[in-house]
Amino acid sequence: MPRDVPVFTLPLRNRRVVLSTRPTGIPQAKHFTFDETGIPEPDQGEVLVRNVYLSVDPAQRGWAADVANYSAPVPLGGPMRGLAVGQVIKSRSEAYSEGDFLYGFFGWQDYAVVTPDAVFHRCTQDLPLDAFASVCGINGVTAYLGLTLLGRPEAGDTLVVSTAAGSVGSFVGQIGNGLGCRTVGLTGSDEKVELCKTRFGYDAAINYRTADLEAAVRAEAPEGVNVYFDNTGGAILDTVLRQMAVAGRIVQCGTAANSSWSPIPTGPRNEREIMTRRLVWSGFVVFDHLTRYASACDDLAAMVAKGTLTWATDMKQGIECAPEAINDLYEGRNMGKSMIFIG
Amino acid sequence: MPRDVPVFTLPLRNRRVVLSTRPTGIPQAKHFTFDETGIPEPDQGEVLVRNVYLSVDPAQRGWAADVANYSAPVPLGGPMRGLAVGQVIKSRSEAYSEGDFLYGFFGWQDYAVVTPDAVFHRCTQDLPLDAFASVCGINGVTAYLGLTLLGRPEAGDTLVVSTAAGSVGSFVGQIGNGLGCRTVGLTGSDEKVELCKTRFGYDAAINYRTADLEAAVRAEAPEGVNVYFDNTGGAILDTVLRQMAVAGRIVQCGTAANSSWSPIPTGPRNEREIMTRRLVWSGFVVFDHLTRYASACDDLAAMVAKGTLTWATDMKQGIECAPEAINDLYEGRNMGKSMIFIG
Repeated sequence: MPRDVPVFTLPLRNRRVVLSTRPTGIPQAKHFTFDETGIPEPDQGEVLVRNVYLSVDPAQRGWAADVANYSAPVPLGGPMRGLAVGQVIKSRSEAYSEGDFLYGFFGWQDYAVVTPDAVFHRCTQDLPLDAFASVCGINGVTAYLGLTLLGRPEAGDTLVVSTAAGSVGSFVGQIGNGLGCRTVGLTGSDEKVELCKTRFGYDAAINYRTADLEAAVRAEAPEGVNVYFDNTGGAILDTVLRQMAVAGRIVQCGTAANSSWSPIPTGPRNEREIMTRRLVWSGFVVFDHLTRYASACDDLAAMVAKGTLTWATDMKQGIECAPEAINDLYEGRNMGKSMIFIG
Repeated sequence: MPRDVPVFTLPLRNRRVVLSTRPTGIPQAKHFTFDETGIPEPDQGEVLVRNVYLSVDPAQRGWAADVANYSAPVPLGGPMRGLAVGQVIKSRSEAYSEGDFLYGFFGWQDYAVVTPDAVFHRCTQDLPLDAFASVCGINGVTAYLGLTLLGRPEAGDTLVVSTAAGSVGSFVGQIGNGLGCRTVGLTGSDEKVELCKTRFGYDAAINYRTADLEAAVRAEAPEGVNVYFDNTGGAILDTVLRQMAVAGRIVQCGTAANSSWSPIPTGPRNEREIMTRRLVWSGFVVFDHLTRYASACDDLAAMVAKGTLTWATDMKQGIECAPEAINDLYEGRNMGKSMIFIG
């Protein structure tokens, strides 16, 4: 059980952050309203969860968009789809008991009634509760499974990571270090360059906004990049892809660099690079790998216990912070995993 | 031993097709001259090979270019790099004996003195000799290993192949049929559409020059494309990539659609498709897989014996046909694997 649980209340009404208009790009405060409902009652097979930490994730942009990607768009007028850590207040399911802390798709609201398929993880590892929306949230698990299953790094490989100080990238770098890689982080400010080197242990870090990125990557990876874990796409991807070593692996985990995909933006053609360098370019979505979730959390918690994995949390207070939080993320205003304590 | 060996002569001089000027795009007749040398003598560890069939391959464009891709450019003033089937006339190597038929990098010339590392395959399977530059040449082996190792088709998958009637594509379709795939060929003329359906057994074939390719692919693959074996890149790739099923595999085996890579042509960005559809896009070059060559030929010869694999040869006569042959290939003038009998 988690050793560090904040005090939280049980309000009598359910406040919800409702998606009221459809964003075309990044969701802004104006796309949301608040409402209140009564506390919902669980039916047979369901549990009532009191949310404690709402997770703010880049993927929410895609979930709010009108264009289905890997999941259906969030319905207008309903609570924003989102991950959260919460506690079971009432259980009518054999899967979970009252008092259990869970992490799953509980939405941006105080209370959620869900079936067990909305739950990603029961928070059993010996970690502070916020870690279950970070190290053991989709961020840490994405970093761990995306890197190991698709990136397949070997000791001595050069691993480049974009949004290197971000909620996924910061874990990729640390896990890569633990696997014996030379780690090079790409990030967007000198402050984050420092964070990469001092807190997240990158061997090198580059401010892509001020550096000559091509020259800088070549200098840090003179024999080519073996694994590129990409959270941005766009011009950064174009540059690193042309610095890949033969048989290099690119893990496409996010596409934060493009604010709109309609019309489809253009860029340099990559098929010749893919072929002549014999690259493997794969897309990663953590929801494909939920059967590995619990064992990934065990591995990640073990790294924390060993002292090789640390995390930063950018904790906001109060559900009223939620509507602006996704945009803040895309503006790079957070330092660490963005979440909101709503206790 | 091959059962069908054409009569060939042993000329007293060695005619060579020399790369005399550097092509910027596709090699044309004007980039080559002819010369003659004496018959070279093998040193210790070498063999003298009399070439019988010169193979004409799309990859020769890349080998002749000034920009190294996966191999160094062909030196100006030397014989054009090329694959050939020939017979050992004199051996000073323990690896091969006089009389052996071999397939390898023997160059566009009558005679070659080579060390065993230039040899891809000893022609031991029970096939006509020209099959060793086709079914058991890099074409057939590329089709077989590229499809099975990177495409990983499963029974019931929809497999789309570009240059479907070509020297690689025609094998991909047939091998895919044998593995239980629904096979859809893309090709550039109605005549080749017919060839795909009648001779190479595709379930469907599309003339990409006259069809609405997007609508046609969607109609033939209503649940998405599971495996796309691409020999063209360019606009055809752009279209098929957006019709891939979740977890689909793209095998990049050639990039024939672009006549120049300098400056780098642009196209729609693909990183979002890679990620949201969780695609795997890999580059295939057969030379990475030479340790599997002989067993691949055994498998391919077994398919021929079973009657599930056939091939078409576009046989030219005389070494003087060589300089125009690569351009003819890119113009789509061949019907089957292009080779030249120089006996």
